[in-house]
Amino acid sequence: METDFVAWLVSRLPADPRLEVPPGDDAAVLRPPAMRRTVITVDMLMEGTDFILGPECSPEAIGHKALAVSLSDLAAMAARPEAAVVAVALPRHGGDAVGRGIQAGLESLAADHHVVLAGGDTNAWDGPLVISTTALGSVAPGAAWRRDGARPGDLLVVTGALGGSLLGRHLAVRPRVREALFIAERFPVHAAIDCSDGLTLDLARMMAASGVRGVVRLAEVPIHPDAVRRAARDGGTPLDHALGDGEDFELILALPPEAAHQLMAAAGTPPLDLAITVIGTVEEGAGLMAETADGSRSTLAPRGYIHDFDA
Amino acid sequence: METDFVAWLVSRLPADPRLEVPPGDDAAVLRPPAMRRTVITVDMLMEGTDFILGPECSPEAIGHKALAVSLSDLAAMAARPEAAVVAVALPRHGGDAVGRGIQAGLESLAADHHVVLAGGDTNAWDGPLVISTTALGSVAPGAAWRRDGARPGDLLVVTGALGGSLLGRHLAVRPRVREALFIAERFPVHAAIDCSDGLTLDLARMMAASGVRGVVRLAEVPIHPDAVRRAARDGGTPLDHALGDGEDFELILALPPEAAHQLMAAAGTPPLDLAITVIGTVEEGAGLMAETADGSRSTLAPRGYIHDFDA
Repeated sequence: METDFVAWLVSRLPADPRLEVPPGDDAAVLRPPAMRRTVITVDMLMEGTDFILGPECSPEAIGHKALAVSLSDLAAMAARPEAAVVAVALPRHGGDAVGRGIQAGLESLAADHHVVLAGGDTNAWDGPLVISTTALGSVAPGAAWRRDGARPGDLLVVTGALGGSLLGRHLAVRPRVREALFIAERFPVHAAIDCSDGLTLDLARMMAASGVRGVVRLAEVPIHPDAVRRAARDGGTPLDHALGDGEDFELILALPPEAAHQLMAAAGTPPLDLAITVIGTVEEGAGLMAETADGSRSTLAPRGYIHDFDA
Repeated sequence: METDFVAWLVSRLPADPRLEVPPGDDAAVLRPPAMRRTVITVDMLMEGTDFILGPECSPEAIGHKALAVSLSDLAAMAARPEAAVVAVALPRHGGDAVGRGIQAGLESLAADHHVVLAGGDTNAWDGPLVISTTALGSVAPGAAWRRDGARPGDLLVVTGALGGSLLGRHLAVRPRVREALFIAERFPVHAAIDCSDGLTLDLARMMAASGVRGVVRLAEVPIHPDAVRRAARDGGTPLDHALGDGEDFELILALPPEAAHQLMAAAGTPPLDLAITVIGTVEEGAGLMAETADGSRSTLAPRGYIHDFDA
């Protein structure tokens, strides 16, 4: 762990009782909350692949997004965010300004979610900007949401509306942390995942992990206005964008029907100030099916962003 | 957190009681050890800056080094390694083989130090290989070594021998984890740092954090045979290489004279199977001084690897 990035952190951030030794040493020392598990997740974003720095994407937006995607992973586990560390490879030319912009984006979102920025590693090179964020959360023993608990008979629920995130929401990510904690305290969620790579792709992962089949009622999928705008530009349908665009960072949940309906009824008032929509059901079987309004069914191929590479 | 890298982990690693939810979900859930603090550190290595993939530097060596530098940071805090997460940006072409090599290097070192590999994020791009490692350790409350505790009258001690690491030791890093834990249990260490960027540079950091001056007796600095070989090639002196090369990943410690001498006497038998050398003293004041065998003194400018960039 190097010192420059960390020096900014230490100088700018208020003391936090969760830190026994603040960043600036070889490592930071955290006081983990008593009787809680530690939840850990890591993500890496690369310039040219995940974002293109420019007028529509500032360093501050990248700092925000880098932490937001990790907080979204914590939300998908119903974990309370506690701390984060960030490693960056900055461009050698102009890296100082980029670093400070990233830092501003990180700090703002960290403050929103009461996250301790517990350290970093700042590097400079002639390559593209790379940022890696590790987030730590906490959860009561046995209380973490998992993706492998969906059961036949459950309803499938999503928060918010989906599709067209490339028009801006892929950067201005609002991780559903508060919503997840609120739901986890009140509703018996059987399985959860965040919608990062695409509704159908992430839902297929949940179904595969759970050993069940998901049936998506296409007419019920909540379509974001951005999906409509994207569709108008590229000729696809708004539904296609909602099913496969990804980077929505909404929650996909499986829970028993009664609980799902109670959850829908609870939506609309803070902290659950967003749409909650039942989009389908869980059955015995495997894979995904699409169900149209007239009840006819067809196989639904998972679509979304695959982080693949050549062998 | 994505699934491909994680899938390898899950399929290859034995179950570990420290994992409540294994990697493969949005995040992993760890059971932190009771009554311990959490120590966290992050590092990033970039191809072309920190290493050049080729005959002398395999993907496996990179996997080893990436985890080793983070474990060295834990050692410098006298923390017991517990878990690590790893994010990589792999080359799109041939990335699969590179990723598997990295994984092998990670696994081997993790097994050596009983580290749970708790997750990862695998990405592919057309840029150079980038790997970021976050290591979690644990330590008793108040027991973490810090760099700001050196006091006038302390002796300065280093493990091992220094210099010339570029001849191979910069890759085959042996983090001084077991040695640090052994020393921390038996000796009153006032301050510690790992020698990553250069003996004088890292020592200067310890002195600055502690508000004291370090006096280095040049004749006492343990010079590695690699420093002699490097000096024969490039015309510098072996001592210069020992003082400024860095990437030694040895421990620099400050402790009271009696304890320092007892520590030296304890060296040579496992687990302290390495040289322990007193290289100088701590005084009131600031900065570093060099003291030659005849007792004459001069200012010692910190030298080493600075991760700088243009503003």
